[in-house]
Amino acid sequence: MTVIEYDGRILVVDTGLMFPTAEMLGIDLVLPDFSYLRDRADDIEAIVLTHGHEDHVGALPYVLREIGQPPVIYGGLLTVGMVRSKLDEHKLGDAPLQELPAGEKAQAGPFQLELIHLSHSIPDMRAVLITTELGSMLMTGDYKFDQTPVDGRPADIARLAEVGRDGLLLLCGDSTNADRPGIAPSESRVGPALLETFSGCEGRIIVTSFASNIHRVQQVIDAAVKLDRRVALVGRSMRKNFNIASNLGIANAPSGLFIQPREIGSFPDEKLVIISTGSQGEPLSALRRMANNDHRDVELHSGDTVVFSATPVPGNERAVNETIDRIYEIGAKVVTAQDAPIHASGHGSQEEIKLMLNLTKPKYVLPVHGDYKRLRLHAELAHSVGIDPANVFQGRNGLPLEIDENGAGFGEDIHNGVMFVDGVNIGEPDDAALRDRREISADGIFIVVATISSDDGAVVADPEVIFRGVAFLEEAGALVEELKDVIEDSLEDAAEAGTRELHLIQEDLHDAVGKLVFQKLRRRPMILPVVVEV
Amino acid sequence: MTVIEYDGRILVVDTGLMFPTAEMLGIDLVLPDFSYLRDRADDIEAIVLTHGHEDHVGALPYVLREIGQPPVIYGGLLTVGMVRSKLDEHKLGDAPLQELPAGEKAQAGPFQLELIHLSHSIPDMRAVLITTELGSMLMTGDYKFDQTPVDGRPADIARLAEVGRDGLLLLCGDSTNADRPGIAPSESRVGPALLETFSGCEGRIIVTSFASNIHRVQQVIDAAVKLDRRVALVGRSMRKNFNIASNLGIANAPSGLFIQPREIGSFPDEKLVIISTGSQGEPLSALRRMANNDHRDVELHSGDTVVFSATPVPGNERAVNETIDRIYEIGAKVVTAQDAPIHASGHGSQEEIKLMLNLTKPKYVLPVHGDYKRLRLHAELAHSVGIDPANVFQGRNGLPLEIDENGAGFGEDIHNGVMFVDGVNIGEPDDAALRDRREISADGIFIVVATISSDDGAVVADPEVIFRGVAFLEEAGALVEELKDVIEDSLEDAAEAGTRELHLIQEDLHDAVGKLVFQKLRRRPMILPVVVEV
Repeated sequence: MTVIEYDGRILVVDTGLMFPTAEMLGIDLVLPDFSYLRDRADDIEAIVLTHGHEDHVGALPYVLREIGQPPVIYGGLLTVGMVRSKLDEHKLGDAPLQELPAGEKAQAGPFQLELIHLSHSIPDMRAVLITTELGSMLMTGDYKFDQTPVDGRPADIARLAEVGRDGLLLLCGDSTNADRPGIAPSESRVGPALLETFSGCEGRIIVTSFASNIHRVQQVIDAAVKLDRRVALVGRSMRKNFNIASNLGIANAPSGLFIQPREIGSFPDEKLVIISTGSQGEPLSALRRMANNDHRDVELHSGDTVVFSATPVPGNERAVNETIDRIYEIGAKVVTAQDAPIHASGHGSQEEIKLMLNLTKPKYVLPVHGDYKRLRLHAELAHSVGIDPANVFQGRNGLPLEIDENGAGFGEDIHNGVMFVDGVNIGEPDDAALRDRREISADGIFIVVATISSDDGAVVADPEVIFRGVAFLEEAGALVEELKDVIEDSLEDAAEAGTRELHLIQEDLHDAVGKLVFQKLRRRPMILPVVVEV
Repeated sequence: MTVIEYDGRILVVDTGLMFPTAEMLGIDLVLPDFSYLRDRADDIEAIVLTHGHEDHVGALPYVLREIGQPPVIYGGLLTVGMVRSKLDEHKLGDAPLQELPAGEKAQAGPFQLELIHLSHSIPDMRAVLITTELGSMLMTGDYKFDQTPVDGRPADIARLAEVGRDGLLLLCGDSTNADRPGIAPSESRVGPALLETFSGCEGRIIVTSFASNIHRVQQVIDAAVKLDRRVALVGRSMRKNFNIASNLGIANAPSGLFIQPREIGSFPDEKLVIISTGSQGEPLSALRRMANNDHRDVELHSGDTVVFSATPVPGNERAVNETIDRIYEIGAKVVTAQDAPIHASGHGSQEEIKLMLNLTKPKYVLPVHGDYKRLRLHAELAHSVGIDPANVFQGRNGLPLEIDENGAGFGEDIHNGVMFVDGVNIGEPDDAALRDRREISADGIFIVVATISSDDGAVVADPEVIFRGVAFLEEAGALVEELKDVIEDSLEDAAEAGTRELHLIQEDLHDAVGKLVFQKLRRRPMILPVVVEV
């Protein structure tokens, strides 16, 4: 998510999200921290979306709900279609979402906007050209220079060259594959490889890929048609995205090709291609369920071939490997991108990044969309094509790049980091609740309830000791009895000493119980004393 | 960990462990489930260890403590040295640990034992040849056929050929790299690549590798000597393992080469090589601490070059990438095995697995040490060299392979799976405590304390509502007040209805509180009602 400001007015490019890692206990989604916009809602002229991937549009419902609706939200055709569907689900169907066709210009306050068509692993990917009185900047979004894209529309290199000829002030370019030499393979190379892979299969074919990679799904469908196999789309997002793309004329299939998932069981294996979600090993995905005998309609069996037409996103390697190994355990076959060229990255490699730099000839370069390593490698590519290293900036989230007639430089750190979505709530990652979750999930929790007289602090009911998440407690009964003794001693000491402040009594209980528990278990579970006066 | 039985007597080969994944909340270590041995302790003739890696010896202290001491524990020289040090730490210094030199034979009950030298990423790796009246079996352990190992002692191919000539009944072979074509690069290829990498460094050099890879550490030391740099060993296991190997004559360094970690700061950067633990991105490792300004003696800075002379073990990719990216953020350089040939796997590739099969000519083959995928690929390699597919077994943990004069086949599943170590305790993975940890770590916990009269069930003190791990609860006060109303209503209903069983009152409280919490938070935290009668 990028905020562009000029003359007090604001343009927002993309509103992406991240998915939580295993350490983010119980967290549903990770959002950019957009609190900077909270008091600036009236200054926002527009939100522009480069393409429909979650890491570029996923936070939009939260931005609209927390910040309010901007005058307009622009994007390409499929982007608008996919985002409209998402906003409908969030009951935000009234958002001012609008297609801005590539090449057309739109004015939003002091910003003149133009979308420039590029290729990526989702159709209708658009760079955003933003022109103000000071000059122009280009946000590339995610791109590759695919010379033979599946839809026959390569990146608009001519327009990028014009932008360069007219003078570009700033390029913010995708760094995802800045560590890869050469050029990314064309998406259209994948189709023949899929066809060849399928041709060698005797039983069922299950293909998994990103549901938003419409051209990939299209190529799977085309290969199925050539081999006279019927197709079933399995997984909610697979069906949803194909329907959206199909309604927009971006994808198509011969009528009668599709069968319903529930019909799969009654169809001959050798006449079937199943296209499924789950290429990243997601625990609840259709593929993982099929592999674990946990899917309503499909159960994998030996004779099946599962084709991974995708590579693991960094961090997902273990989940993907677990899925693959489960399929081997069943006795089915697995084909991955290591076995055949059945995947092509949507991000350009080093030669494409250099081509972008040479076409647009920016004065300033701010590599974006990558970790520190790839931002640095992108910067080095910029140096290598002759851009003054002093004009190449290595930024980080929340560090604003400020440009005026005299030059460019980083301003003061405003905000960085992320917000967590937990159920219906949004909050800070350092929330005490998450520390508590980590503490309890490591060692468990002991709850101690003591009931004392409000007259003299005397114990008026047996203390209760309850624990949860304390592992392998074979001698639980004995420990609880010992703890009750310790609790009664502590309460009697407090009564004798005339201590009547509940928080002091609770502190003493906490320390006494914690000490004995550590002696016995060599662990420090959370100790939660509750003292009730009657 | 493999149990071999003949005539009622038992031989154990290796006692490895695994490290917990992020989902195993609070778990310290994962052990093989060795409960099968619990009533058979007296039948154990010996434990034999192939090599000193944790996944082959790490569970030994737990086995000795839970099952008891066997008559003898055999291993190679370094294996015995490393395991002795480990057992001393566990106060098991009296274990009957003994070197069995390669080629010597030992009798343990009905088992004749011989260790055969192979090469691996730790010195003194030994296959175990076990001969009974029925025939011989070979457990390869982890191996590669390195023709130019650093210590000049290649695998004893001649002895393997003799084993094949004499007739081998069963081969249990390492499957780790059964998916890699060709042959693993020699360890001695790494030294020149390290020297070349170091030669291009102007500042400090920090090399990270597995601490047990003594020959790798030796090659780093040799390169440092050639470049006239001093060496500091950083990280407890790095110092410990080098000391053990050095005392056994397996590693050596010129006197005066080493400096202490605390001297690093006062030494010129360009005269220094630091050898550190942390190649797998372990959170508490020396490298990660150095990168996070959290190490007592060393802080990384720009000008440093960090050399990863290791590749991530599957599952560790994200932790390693995080470490690398943190080093880029600091501005230091990173060299990995993708940039230069500074790592060589310790496991043989497909041609080596085939060579092992052809040398030993086993009647039966049981691929071991790999996931289902690699076990199957290993089986296919066995088919490819002409072994009857009916004699190649694809097993799993706990499924015994039974062999007699008439043939071989799987017996009844005995035990499979693992045990978890949590603090001082060992238990089952499906322990309720771990389910509770998962539940609380996802959504938190509400504790409700109600105090009622033992006479008539009337409420005699205000209910208490305490919560932990409930995220972003801005309206906590209001929710607690509402919950107290619900609790009092529930208690009054129970009193009116004459319900006096505490567990029924608690159930009602649980349901009433859970319902309101879900309405408000769209979450299902654990609800723990405690009713105290006074």
